[in-house]
Amino acid sequence: MKHGARWIGATALAGGLLAGAGAVGGGAQDAAPIRGFFAGRVAEERALEQRFRAIPEAARAEKSLRRLTSEPHMAGTEASHRVAEWLREQYASFGFDAAIVSYSAWMPQPREVQLELVAPEHKALATQEEPIASDKDTLTKGAVVGFNAYSPSADVTAAVVYVNYGMVEDYRQLDAMGVSVEGKIAIARYGRCYRGIKTKLAEEHKAAGLIIYSDPQDDGYAAGDVYPDGPWRPMSAIQRGSVEYTEIYPGDPLTPGVAATPDARRLAPADAADVAHIPTMPINAQDADAILRSLGGPHVPKGWQGALPFTYHVGAGAARVHMKLEMDYQQREIYDVIARLAGADDDEWVVMGNHHDAWVYGAADPNSGTAVMLETAQALGELARGGWRPRRTIVMCHWDGEEFGLIGSTEWVEANRAELQAKAVAYINTDVGVNGPNFNAGATPSLKELVREAAREVQDPRGGRSVYDTWRERASHAKDEQSGTARADARVENTGEVALAALGAGSDFCPFFDHAGIASLDMGFGGDYGVYHSLYDDFNWMKKFGDPTFEYHAALARVIGTIALRLDEADVLPFDYAAYAAEIAAAAQSLAERAAQKGGDATSLEPVTKEAAQLSAAAWRARDALAEGRGAALAPEKQKQMNRALASVEQALLSPEGLAGRPWFKHTIYAPGSYAGYAAGVMPGVSEALDRRDSATLAREAAALAAALTRAAARLDEIAQMAQP
Amino acid sequence: MKHGARWIGATALAGGLLAGAGAVGGGAQDAAPIRGFFAGRVAEERALEQRFRAIPEAARAEKSLRRLTSEPHMAGTEASHRVAEWLREQYASFGFDAAIVSYSAWMPQPREVQLELVAPEHKALATQEEPIASDKDTLTKGAVVGFNAYSPSADVTAAVVYVNYGMVEDYRQLDAMGVSVEGKIAIARYGRCYRGIKTKLAEEHKAAGLIIYSDPQDDGYAAGDVYPDGPWRPMSAIQRGSVEYTEIYPGDPLTPGVAATPDARRLAPADAADVAHIPTMPINAQDADAILRSLGGPHVPKGWQGALPFTYHVGAGAARVHMKLEMDYQQREIYDVIARLAGADDDEWVVMGNHHDAWVYGAADPNSGTAVMLETAQALGELARGGWRPRRTIVMCHWDGEEFGLIGSTEWVEANRAELQAKAVAYINTDVGVNGPNFNAGATPSLKELVREAAREVQDPRGGRSVYDTWRERASHAKDEQSGTARADARVENTGEVALAALGAGSDFCPFFDHAGIASLDMGFGGDYGVYHSLYDDFNWMKKFGDPTFEYHAALARVIGTIALRLDEADVLPFDYAAYAAEIAAAAQSLAERAAQKGGDATSLEPVTKEAAQLSAAAWRARDALAEGRGAALAPEKQKQMNRALASVEQALLSPEGLAGRPWFKHTIYAPGSYAGYAAGVMPGVSEALDRRDSATLAREAAALAAALTRAAARLDEIAQMAQP
Repeated sequence: MKHGARWIGATALAGGLLAGAGAVGGGAQDAAPIRGFFAGRVAEERALEQRFRAIPEAARAEKSLRRLTSEPHMAGTEASHRVAEWLREQYASFGFDAAIVSYSAWMPQPREVQLELVAPEHKALATQEEPIASDKDTLTKGAVVGFNAYSPSADVTAAVVYVNYGMVEDYRQLDAMGVSVEGKIAIARYGRCYRGIKTKLAEEHKAAGLIIYSDPQDDGYAAGDVYPDGPWRPMSAIQRGSVEYTEIYPGDPLTPGVAATPDARRLAPADAADVAHIPTMPINAQDADAILRSLGGPHVPKGWQGALPFTYHVGAGAARVHMKLEMDYQQREIYDVIARLAGADDDEWVVMGNHHDAWVYGAADPNSGTAVMLETAQALGELARGGWRPRRTIVMCHWDGEEFGLIGSTEWVEANRAELQAKAVAYINTDVGVNGPNFNAGATPSLKELVREAAREVQDPRGGRSVYDTWRERASHAKDEQSGTARADARVENTGEVALAALGAGSDFCPFFDHAGIASLDMGFGGDYGVYHSLYDDFNWMKKFGDPTFEYHAALARVIGTIALRLDEADVLPFDYAAYAAEIAAAAQSLAERAAQKGGDATSLEPVTKEAAQLSAAAWRARDALAEGRGAALAPEKQKQMNRALASVEQALLSPEGLAGRPWFKHTIYAPGSYAGYAAGVMPGVSEALDRRDSATLAREAAALAAALTRAAARLDEIAQMAQP
Repeated sequence: MKHGARWIGATALAGGLLAGAGAVGGGAQDAAPIRGFFAGRVAEERALEQRFRAIPEAARAEKSLRRLTSEPHMAGTEASHRVAEWLREQYASFGFDAAIVSYSAWMPQPREVQLELVAPEHKALATQEEPIASDKDTLTKGAVVGFNAYSPSADVTAAVVYVNYGMVEDYRQLDAMGVSVEGKIAIARYGRCYRGIKTKLAEEHKAAGLIIYSDPQDDGYAAGDVYPDGPWRPMSAIQRGSVEYTEIYPGDPLTPGVAATPDARRLAPADAADVAHIPTMPINAQDADAILRSLGGPHVPKGWQGALPFTYHVGAGAARVHMKLEMDYQQREIYDVIARLAGADDDEWVVMGNHHDAWVYGAADPNSGTAVMLETAQALGELARGGWRPRRTIVMCHWDGEEFGLIGSTEWVEANRAELQAKAVAYINTDVGVNGPNFNAGATPSLKELVREAAREVQDPRGGRSVYDTWRERASHAKDEQSGTARADARVENTGEVALAALGAGSDFCPFFDHAGIASLDMGFGGDYGVYHSLYDDFNWMKKFGDPTFEYHAALARVIGTIALRLDEADVLPFDYAAYAAEIAAAAQSLAERAAQKGGDATSLEPVTKEAAQLSAAAWRARDALAEGRGAALAPEKQKQMNRALASVEQALLSPEGLAGRPWFKHTIYAPGSYAGYAAGVMPGVSEALDRRDSATLAREAAALAAALTRAAARLDEIAQMAQP
């Protein structure tokens, strides 16, 4: 760090709070500025990044993935423990200080899963995934049968009602048709929302049980060729997955808010608010064919017909199914791997994470991300061996139990919350690192521009252009969201830049961001991917369809590493709070309009609108203060203090009480929607109270939100003060 | 007709050239005005209409339909002759002067239709429609096999390429993928355009043949329950139909522009420009399943996947089919029925028409319309027996050979063109009179308001409201066009009134309107209808799904009869040329914008825009002249002259030379689109020259169009003059 270096003024284009190299173009130009770096430090950073980006290797990522997916390794099994041990060894060999941290969580495994059609004719269902001769991994006996984690055990026989995607509007349509699921088994198709929401809504509508199936329209033959001829879901493939009500709280159901250590105080299972009360199981399309074909009742509404070859009816009618689930709930050990590369300043941490547990082999989900993390770590290790010392400590985490409900990350964040809030600069997540060629990212608004800038520095494997330019080109031809994945497809903002999604839920950034207020990022390369949570998400699938050359794995390691190095080495952390405040102001405006439309009490929202405006003003004051270059003249201790303050603005947006009905969720601006699941709810407390027309809660949530905005504005004003020499 | 009666001034709401009773509301109010009637004549007309509307009977329409569909009665067969004879007898019994008029047209019948998959495996196709035990009419041996009329005979074996709907944009996509149909057999799905366009485009792209199939997505199981469980198309049902290039000219291919009388001068078949040169055949969904499933090549583009249960590919690949068609082309007799109820003035005719020939039984298409016409005729006959004498002659026509290419109507119009142009006031068509509860209509713009007004007078069978109010209610929730039918669904205009479609092609108004310039109307009640042109469009289908009580048949007879009586009895014919001129001006404006976008020679269009404005001005002058009530003071002979002039404005819009490349089409404002088929092309000569970027033709067509507008404006100015007392 060089004192007296000139601080690079903010450019109009980048629009950032801090100085911007927004328009570097496609390549690394030695002279071009980098957001957050003093002018005299840019060449050094650029050289470091270039050395870094030369190290990740596609062939090595392929080897890692082959190793990681050598056996099914579901959380709570010894296989998952073996993966954790291997990862720990890898990090140790890279020169990291690596350890396994384990927790004991209340987790189910299926002992018996039975489903049969008992009328109008008898037919045994719950068929499992068929082996494919050309892919020997599919011959395994080790894959867990299709089940939904956190379903209760049950034995129920009932008539069946088809509920489309099983979302709020679907039940509204059924009501209009006079069809009820009460006492019936609901059958919903996968897609459009988190599966746990489907269970929650079926439970709220008094269904006796829920079957969730994969319709070929959404990710099977109607989307494209099915595995092994193409990347889409074959008729026998089952989407496993958790139905934990993670929108209430994720992690171990028995220890909300505290780490699941051996001596933690635990709830009785019956008191866990995030566990379903109705049996839920996933089935494949061929079983669904047998059930749906036999439903009577009215013809489905417009948009409910899927791609199975008959006319869909909502039921009920003569069809009856018998569902028997016996779940083996136990305290089970999970194994997080936490690896540190100590920085010159160990009081500031750059945290990266990916989960390692998989439903079966998990080649795309999650081990493509694991292989990418290993390439990143290998490269950072090599730099360190070459004499580089990180400015800030780098913490690389591999979570266990993510598939059951973000358990490994949640428990670790709960265990280390105070320290993380004091030290973590940001959290960079990757889950499905690669399943195709399309880069996409979600982020806290303050770090969106950082992602764009890093993507400009890395060449896309498909051509001579950067990852950013390829991403932007695709975004300019935006399409619908790909079903089955949480990530919205790319689109372009008014500024002409690619829009990054808000962070919803569905991966391990959730405890960092929603619970602890650590600024977070999530990214990966997506594509045609129909084998999600099935046996077929294996190495051979990746080699044939996801990333045959593994060049996208290497490219993602370069993007993530570039982001990490910038966060690690920045003189002034590159948070853009003017952009964040602008998104908050727009959200406040749109809420106020919705409130007006609903004819509700719009006055409750006035403090929000007002404080959002104050926040914008404060963000611009801080930006101006820093843009004038005063930051560079500060003493190191003062600079460190300012960086600490910059990283902590996100925490100012937490509400100490949390959201109404789900106090674990502290963030006032973002949370998973209570009835959407993956997609982010914006200003969720206020927004949902408005939807429910609950004016008391609305007033309370609006006050909490306004207070959060006030705190964030105050923090920004402190930063502007600190920038004074 | 009473002299000196006060002429009802035009209301702002009705917006008509002539006085309007636009806002009568739902019922017949004795005192309310009627467009086109002097005040003193309104009560008499209203009483007449009420007597008329009391006569049509659902039960009798049902009996007629049962009789009309007692055997398959394709044009060119003795069964069709028998239907014509029976119709003639019915009209005679109603008191009409009824005759059969026959023509001799060059028409095919299938002698042999073979289709087989020869690779990758052998499978016999061209499967025919399966009998249904609960519907004895389907047990017939008399249904013609699935074939497309005016396909040549051929024997061809080739690889197969899937071309989606086989439209211009589909071939553009195939080009972009590097897939050619040259030398291949193209397979297209039915829908979105006239099937003859599919053949034309396949021929232009050098395909060796064309197969057209019914995809379950468009009118089969994915749309709803299939017959006999619902109204949609079963897997074995075949859509027969003509592929005559009727957009070049309809009718007998060997006698374009002249009647197909025994001594007419005939082209050699090889010189007929409206006949396909590549073999084309229709198949059912189950045959298509076998072919499409075996195609190789790339995965289909977005939107091409249908509802068959596998991933669609464009081909070619290993699949090969062998198609053998042996067509028996002969001069065949067709039998029109022309029935007249002489008016006080036989120099003015109100013409109505419907075809009687069917591909098989034709319960909906066309005999629901035939049964409706019989109810209308029966009622008019009863009024006449009760002492009423029509003011103008009523001519009711039942056409033969419509299904092969509008042969009966085209030949009759060609035979009587001069007399029709001198005498016909308007032509009212109905084809598929009823296949559901949703009223819809198309019309020349000058008569749109007349249709709305008549629809206000008739009660809808579903409730207490009028046909118009029910129609408008549905239009306010406009949906997509139902595939498989020519009629666009209802929508509402800016005025709040239901929009009526422009007249395209696909039924017998075409020769009247497009060739002879007779103002035309087309209407019926539509609904869920998947059995179009199949064996299953039979009496039992209608009784179960189309119109179980036949009340819609009776309602349509009331609407059509009300329109006919208003045209017949009007003091001043109720044409609204201000509305017509407004539509023309809007079309001219939109063409000018398209020309500007294409960067073409916009100056060619200046005369069109200018003359369109002049036409509007003239229409308003005429409207004002008539609105001042002077018309009523005219001597009867002058009034008759003015009515003649009013009816002839449409003819002023004909161009003597006809459209570029298809001189039979004379109308400068409307024609079937050269590559759309059913849908109307607006200002087709200019519009298509613009699409082709053919500036010489553009200039010629623009001049012809401008001249037509000038003539129409002059005619309207004559009318304004005539209105002077």
